[in-house]
Order: sequence, then structure tokens, then C-alpha cells
Amino acid sequence: MDTTEFRRRGKEMVDLIADYLENIEQRTVYPDVEPGYLRSLIPEEAPEDPDTYEDVVKDIERVIMPGVTHWHSPYFYAYFPTANSFPAMLADMLSGAIGCIGFSWAASPACTELETVMMDWLGKMLKLPEDFIAGTHGQGGGVIQGTASEATLVALLAARCRAVRMILASDPQRPETGITSKLVAYSSDQAHCSVERAGMIAGVRMKKIPTDQSDKYAVQGETLRRMIQEDKAAGLIPFYFCATLGTTPSCAFDHITELGPICNAEKIWMHIDAAYAGSSFICPEFRPLLNGIEFADSFNFNAHKWLLVNFDYEFTLFAPLTLTHLSPSASPCLPLPHPVSPSTSQHWQIPLGRRFRSLKMWFVFRMYGLKGLQDYIRKHVELAKEFESLVRADQRFEISADVVLGLVCFRLKGSNEVNETLLKRINNGRKIHLVPCLLSGQFVLRFALCARTTESRHIREAWRLITQLAEEVMQELLLNERGQARDGHHLPQGSVYAPPAPPTPLHPHPPCPVPSQPTVHPNHFRERSAC
Amino acid sequence: MDTTEFRRRGKEMVDLIADYLENIEQRTVYPDVEPGYLRSLIPEEAPEDPDTYEDVVKDIERVIMPGVTHWHSPYFYAYFPTANSFPAMLADMLSGAIGCIGFSWAASPACTELETVMMDWLGKMLKLPEDFIAGTHGQGGGVIQGTASEATLVALLAARCRAVRMILASDPQRPETGITSKLVAYSSDQAHCSVERAGMIAGVRMKKIPTDQSDKYAVQGETLRRMIQEDKAAGLIPFYFCATLGTTPSCAFDHITELGPICNAEKIWMHIDAAYAGSSFICPEFRPLLNGIEFADSFNFNAHKWLLVNFDYEFTLFAPLTLTHLSPSASPCLPLPHPVSPSTSQHWQIPLGRRFRSLKMWFVFRMYGLKGLQDYIRKHVELAKEFESLVRADQRFEISADVVLGLVCFRLKGSNEVNETLLKRINNGRKIHLVPCLLSGQFVLRFALCARTTESRHIREAWRLITQLAEEVMQELLLNERGQARDGHHLPQGSVYAPPAPPTPLHPHPPCPVPSQPTVHPNHFRERSAC
Repeated sequence: MDTTEFRRRGKEMVDLIADYLENIEQRTVYPDVEPGYLRSLIPEEAPEDPDTYEDVVKDIERVIMPGVTHWHSPYFYAYFPTANSFPAMLADMLSGAIGCIGFSWAASPACTELETVMMDWLGKMLKLPEDFIAGTHGQGGGVIQGTASEATLVALLAARCRAVRMILASDPQRPETGITSKLVAYSSDQAHCSVERAGMIAGVRMKKIPTDQSDKYAVQGETLRRMIQEDKAAGLIPFYFCATLGTTPSCAFDHITELGPICNAEKIWMHIDAAYAGSSFICPEFRPLLNGIEFADSFNFNAHKWLLVNFDYEFTLFAPLTLTHLSPSASPCLPLPHPVSPSTSQHWQIPLGRRFRSLKMWFVFRMYGLKGLQDYIRKHVELAKEFESLVRADQRFEISADVVLGLVCFRLKGSNEVNETLLKRINNGRKIHLVPCLLSGQFVLRFALCARTTESRHIREAWRLITQLAEEVMQELLLNERGQARDGHHLPQGSVYAPPAPPTPLHPHPPCPVPSQPTVHPNHFRERSAC
Repeated sequence: MDTTEFRRRGKEMVDLIADYLENIEQRTVYPDVEPGYLRSLIPEEAPEDPDTYEDVVKDIERVIMPGVTHWHSPYFYAYFPTANSFPAMLADMLSGAIGCIGFSWAASPACTELETVMMDWLGKMLKLPEDFIAGTHGQGGGVIQGTASEATLVALLAARCRAVRMILASDPQRPETGITSKLVAYSSDQAHCSVERAGMIAGVRMKKIPTDQSDKYAVQGETLRRMIQEDKAAGLIPFYFCATLGTTPSCAFDHITELGPICNAEKIWMHIDAAYAGSSFICPEFRPLLNGIEFADSFNFNAHKWLLVNFDYEFTLFAPLTLTHLSPSASPCLPLPHPVSPSTSQHWQIPLGRRFRSLKMWFVFRMYGLKGLQDYIRKHVELAKEFESLVRADQRFEISADVVLGLVCFRLKGSNEVNETLLKRINNGRKIHLVPCLLSGQFVLRFALCARTTESRHIREAWRLITQLAEEVMQELLLNERGQARDGHHLPQGSVYAPPAPPTPLHPHPPCPVPSQPTVHPNHFRERSAC
């Protein structure tokens, strides 16, 4: 394909994309395909000679679209949002064309420098402490990473490095492996499973701090303090705490104003994972949720979740005071930390290569403006509140966790089984798509505001559908109970009590990498009950 | 921006991209800006109200392009190539619009399934052993990762897991930390620095196996065998060897047909990093370079380097026999391994979220066909051979390493200083762009075939420029030597003997994350002498 043909095909692709997004409501939000559907639709090997472009484009509808879960449909309420905006797409096209690998300043000065300035824009929008801003002479700042999983891992590696160095500074003869084997990290039992996974990768002990509903699923200072004391008494070395602002199951907020001073006093690195909720802190009314950031060593959130910058675009900002005390002549077995800067950004991420991702943020922030982005966040929160009020007005349902931002956790009053059945009916209907979570042992439905184009009418339509299916499920339950009472036997297969098959994942977006059940055959695509 | 405006702006962007790539030769390949150039060109904060799209587009030439290193200019010969093709760009546009996060089958069946089938296409193109193919009932297969850094880390984590499990199986009471502190991994002293970094992240000992010019910078079996025996005698547990096919400095090839059987006999996980060279194995004439793959447990290469699939697109394939012996009920402190499959792909990468990247490969492989891709590889190799013959025909120069694929390592016969001066002149001229390497202590210039549009005329023009600058440098050297002999004093500052400032990075693409010099001020963008 030469430039002339690209001009033509590129414009056709722009129209194809515009058509897709303009008419996405007409598509079934959740695909009706069986695992393994795709393999038979395409050849087993790459062609020897080129196919025509027309054939490739035809196959988008024939092969790809039947298997797409439409994350940008206004009927998609699963997991958490993933961003999608036209300015981000335009910037990404440009990024692909420039196609630089920005692993150092020389490899692409523009890529390296725009990223630093964009991180500063963001830090200022979030009203972060001055120390988090790079500016012209600052020591703080941040880098763009791919995902929150990488951010929490990098923060943990930095914390591991700092802990080992601090101990070696006072006891230079102590063997390093003797130190790492005593290290202990903490996170909430509501933290994303990638936090636990980071501990596994780095080879350090990770403990979950218990929460319960009376705490609103948040970690409280007293609990952390007690665990630290117990662990120190047992000879362990507490070194890292990953707080979550906006947990995956219920959007709960750890009490960082209490937790931060404890971490600081104990020289524990406090990282804040605000993957979803972080975007909302650009609104003054939600910014208090971030109070306590001044105690943190590092902080991450995903602009690709809720800030209209397409995946992947994750921010990690590092507090500088921690870092400037660290000599760059690192212990030979630890790559981190170095002061954050554009010329050292490769030290703060797992991959070395990097796309020109800051272009996306630059386009989006300029085309929306701060006010436009705030309006967008507020619209989703308002829609969530609207949905919450619909749920509260129906006596058959209950709200399972405080609705703070754009997520509503709710359930039918009754057994887990009846809620599982309801969810299964909802998803099998394919008109809307939701995923569940477990809160204090209860099976709960999560209604997350996701698509950029979701409006009040979609919410109300979704609620009509949910209540209609709930009515069906409850009627069947009643009939079955009567039948059971009359016949004195158990329910037949296929009744509302039948266990859902395949099992519904209990942890939403993204599932935990450690399965609790034996892994299925590699080519057997059934979902596992993850986490 | 609504859909109507996107249709218009998207088409304008297609033309902007086509214009950029069509006229890229007219741009200075290496930017003439000073560190920190960008900050003063844009506001310090994001705008409150939206900017106009016209203003944003104007700023591409005003702010971005002056700081871009043009990786796709036919005058770019630095690092290794990064791919850029029109079919890949078109597919990436579609991927951005679908905007799914394919972390599980349900999250996007099409994304999950196309990836598996594309990995099979690739495995077949590379004539890999059948066990590496997933097929319908196979146990092997692979996943797309972002970068080779991630691939070697994931392979090392899997190897660590296997080693710990094997030892625990025979000695269940042994403490896990006692095992990991004894583990030892190996790689070539020519391996990419990300391999060493993977060891740091995973917290295991990593040893470099010495090579020298007489070995053509390759690891030989006897050297590995000796190190293993010495380490075992010292109570260590050898568990992982990362072989390199096509090293970063000189495109050297470790002798895997010798190394593989040693690793297999010692139950050492052999990973093969063929980041650059891997693409060439689709040509029958280069496939013998991969002989010995049958001994490997895992294998990676970057399609985003040399296979026309834009960044990021890295393949990792895993041999299945190793994996099917591993129970998925993993040791609690180790997340890996699980059998590779689309439903478990998140276990084989560091991030959990994933873009719909397989679309890029599907478009590229269909639009080029296998023959088109082979032709592309062959063209680069032929151009490298042409450049090699130009160098060999000039008595002032020497070739520093075998030219096997698209990289020519060469230098002026003489001191490192004269070669450093030559490189500095070349890059300061900004007409072509090269980076150096160190081979057996010698400062060597790397001439890597990079851009898709490079032709014989560009090579010849580059050589004319290099010889012209070499002539200048040698004339000055001669004058200085005469002056020195006459005056009996040392050279003035600025002569060809003056050390280059800023220091030129000694390791090409990408630089090592562990600096050998103190890190500069965060906002001081000078390049460090990395690695």
C-alpha cells in the first residue's frame, strides 16, 4: 500500500469508525458467540500472496464484530469505563505515524518533553502538593505507564529498594537476601488483585488488611497500626502500603489521612492506587477524596479509564523528597529508584520502549478544556445518582455500598442465588452488560457508568429491563417454591436455582491472575471464576 | 468533537500523516533543539476552556516536529528499526475505535481469539516445532506483549516458579526464600540490559557469560557448562538461561544448538530473545539461525521492529511440554506459570489490560502476504550487504563484526577517539543518524537498516557523507599531529581529540536502565553514558 492508497483507505477507515460509533446502540452489547468461534472463520495460515484490502475490510463485519464486547455502547455497564474520544483517536493516529520509540531524550526529544509537561498539567489540575510537579527545577514529577498493574509494581520495586538501602545504611554487613525475606507489604483486602501480584513478582510477602461493611470497605488506621506492630514483633520489616482510592468492587476509599502519618512515622512507602477514581479529583467537589496525598510517596490513576484518553494511558506521579535522598549508585541487585525525570523515565517502568502517548492527553485536554473534562465526570456521577434513586425507590432492591462516583452496587433483597440468576438473565439478554462483585459474602451487581454517550434515557431503559427480569426471576422463584412445597422434591435443572454455567467471574475489571480453580484446557475458552 | 467533525478531522489527519511520510526525507533526521526546548512553547497549565482544533493542529509543526527524531526517515540508521506500515496504522485506528480491554475472553472474545490464531500463523511462518502451536487442541502457543523487556521478565518469572516447585517437590520443608536466594540465572555479556534488569526486578542473581571477538560475540556451550558446574559446586541453583539471537551491539547469535542440550540436561529454562533478528526467520535462508529452538522453553521477538507491525507488538511463544507439567494451583508467592491459552493470557504478561493489537498483525500479514514480508526483510539485508561492500572497499575503514542481517558494525582503523569524533560529526550534521556500540573495548559505529523506504541511493549518499566527514576528521588529525610534533604541546580544546560532550551513549537501543554515572538533574536532559 503506497501513500496514495493510504489517503483513500485512511479516509474510508475514518468513515467506518464514525459509522461504528454513531450506530453502536444498534449492536448487541455482549457478543453471542461460543468460545472458539473465530478460528474456523479465517485460514489456518497467513497468505503467501497479499489479500485485497476490500477482503480485509469485509472481514471486519464477518470475523471481528460478531465477537466484540462493545465497551463504548451506552448499554455497557460492566467493569469500569475505558476511555474513548475523538481527539484521543486523532492524536493516536499521529503518534502511530511519527512512530518513535521514546526511551531516551535523544530518541525523541518531543516525546520525552511533552510527557513531562503533560504530567505537570495533570498534577496542577489535581492540585497536588508542589513537590509532585517537575517544573523547570523541580525534583518530582511523573511518567506515563501502560496500566495500574505496572504502576503498583514499579512503586513496590522502588519501595523495596529504599527499604533495603535504609537497612544496609545502618547495617552494611547484613546480607540482602536476609533483608528481602523479612520485608512485608500491605494492601486492603479490597485492593485490586494486581497489587498482590506485584508482591509475587517482586518476591516479597504481601498481607491483606481486613475491611468490612461497617468501615465502608475502607482500611482504617487502627487496623494498619496493629498489623505493623504485630509484624515488627515477629521480626518482619514493614516497608510498603498500597492504599486504594476507589476500589474495584465498590469504589471504597481507604482513610489515607489516618494511614499516611502512620506510614510516614514507620518509614513505610505509601503508594496510592486511584486507578478509576483518580480522574474525578479534577473536580473541586471530589478533590477532598484525595486529601492525605501529602503523606504519599507515589500515586497512580488511569487517564484511560475516565479521562477520555484512550487506552493505554496510566499516570504515575512520585513524591520527590523520598527520591532525592536516594543515591543513583544503586545497589547492584535493584534497578530503582532514580530521581524521576524525562531522561530517567525508563527507570520508572517495566518496558523500556515507549509510544508517543502524551500526544493523546495533549489533544484531549486542549479539545475539552478543564471545564469540559469536569462536566464529563459530573455527568457520569449524576447518572449514577439517578440510577441509585431508581434502585432505592424499589422496595425489592437494596444499595450495597455508598454511591460516591459513577458506580452503583445493588442487589435484590434475598439470596445470592437469586441475584446470580438475575445477572445471568441480564447478560444472556445481551441488551445491557454488567459484572458482579462479592461484598461481605454477598453477590452484588455492579452498575458502572462507562460509555461517553450514555444518557439518562439509557439508564432508565436499563432499569426497566432489570426490573422486568427481576420480576420474572421472582415469579419463577415463587412458582418453584410452591411446587417444591407441593411435590417435596428439589428443583429441576434450568430453574433459577441452577448454578450458572459458565461460572460468572466474581471479580470485575480486570480479573485476578491467580485462578482459584484448575485452569481449563488452553483452547477451552470458558470463563473461570477468577480471584 | 462530534462524529460529523471527526469525519472531517480524521480525513485531514490522514492527509497530514500521508504528507508527513511522503516528505520525511526533506526533514532533518535528528532534531536541532536543546534540552528543555518544549516547555516554553506551550502553556504551563491545561486550558480552562477548549482550544480550537486548528490551533492544536498548527502546534504539531510549531511544538512537536522540531523535537522529533524521525525514525522513519530513510536517513535514520540508529538503534534498530521500529516498524511502520500503512496497513498497521489502519488497523490501529480500528483498534482504538473498538477500544476494548481484552483481559479475558468475555471482555472481548474477538480480541482474545484473533490473538491466539495470529500467534499460530506466526509460529507456522517460523516453522516452529509443532508443540509451540496452540491449534484447536494444542497446549503451546503464545501471547502478544508490549516489549522484549516484558517478555524476558515473564519468562524469568516462569522459570523461577518452575525451579522453586521442582525443589519443593523433592524437599517440601525447605523455605522458599532459602531457594530463591540460591537461584542463579545466566545471559551473554552481549545480552540486552533489560535481561539483567529482569533479574533485578525478580530479585534473583544474574550472571553474564563472557564472549569475545574470536567467538563472534556468541555464548559457547563450553563456557556455559563451566559456569554451571562452578556455581553448583558453590551451592547455587542454576535455573534460567537467556540466549540471544541477534544481539543489540553487533547482531551476534548464541550457539543454541550447543547451549540447548546443556540447559535441558540441567533442567535450566532456556529462553531465546530474538528481539530484532526474529523477524528474519520467516525467510528459509535465515531460518537455520533459529535451529536449536526445539530445546527452548520460550522464545520472543518484536514484530514491531522488523515485521512492519507498528509498536508495540512483541511475540512471546512458550513451549508447552514444560508448562503442562505444572499444576495451576500455584505456590502462593508465585503467579506463574499456567498453561498458555487465550483465557489465561493475562498470566503471561505484567499488565492485565490489553489493546486489540492482533488486528495490526492481521492487516499487515494479509496486505503484504508472506512473500511481501520476506521481500522486505531481504531488501534490508541486501542493503546492509551493499553498505558492507562500500566499507570494505575503503582501506581506511574496517568491518567490526560479521554482517548477518541488516546491521553493519564498522569503524575507522585507528583510535576510539577518532571514531567518536567521526560519529559526533555525523550526528551533528543531522543529515543521517547513527548510534555506536562497544565491541571488545573498541568504539564502533552501528549502521542499522531501519526505514521501510530506504533504498540503495540513500545508502550510497550516507556512505559519501561518512567518508567525506572521515576525510575531514583525518585531515585535522594529521594537522594536529604535525602541530603537536612541531610545538611539543597538547591539543587545544575543540580538536578531534577533545572528549565529546554530551557523552555519546555507548549502548544502542534501548539504553540500559542502570546508569554508570550519577544521574543528572531531573530537568537537565543531557544524555547519559548509559549501560
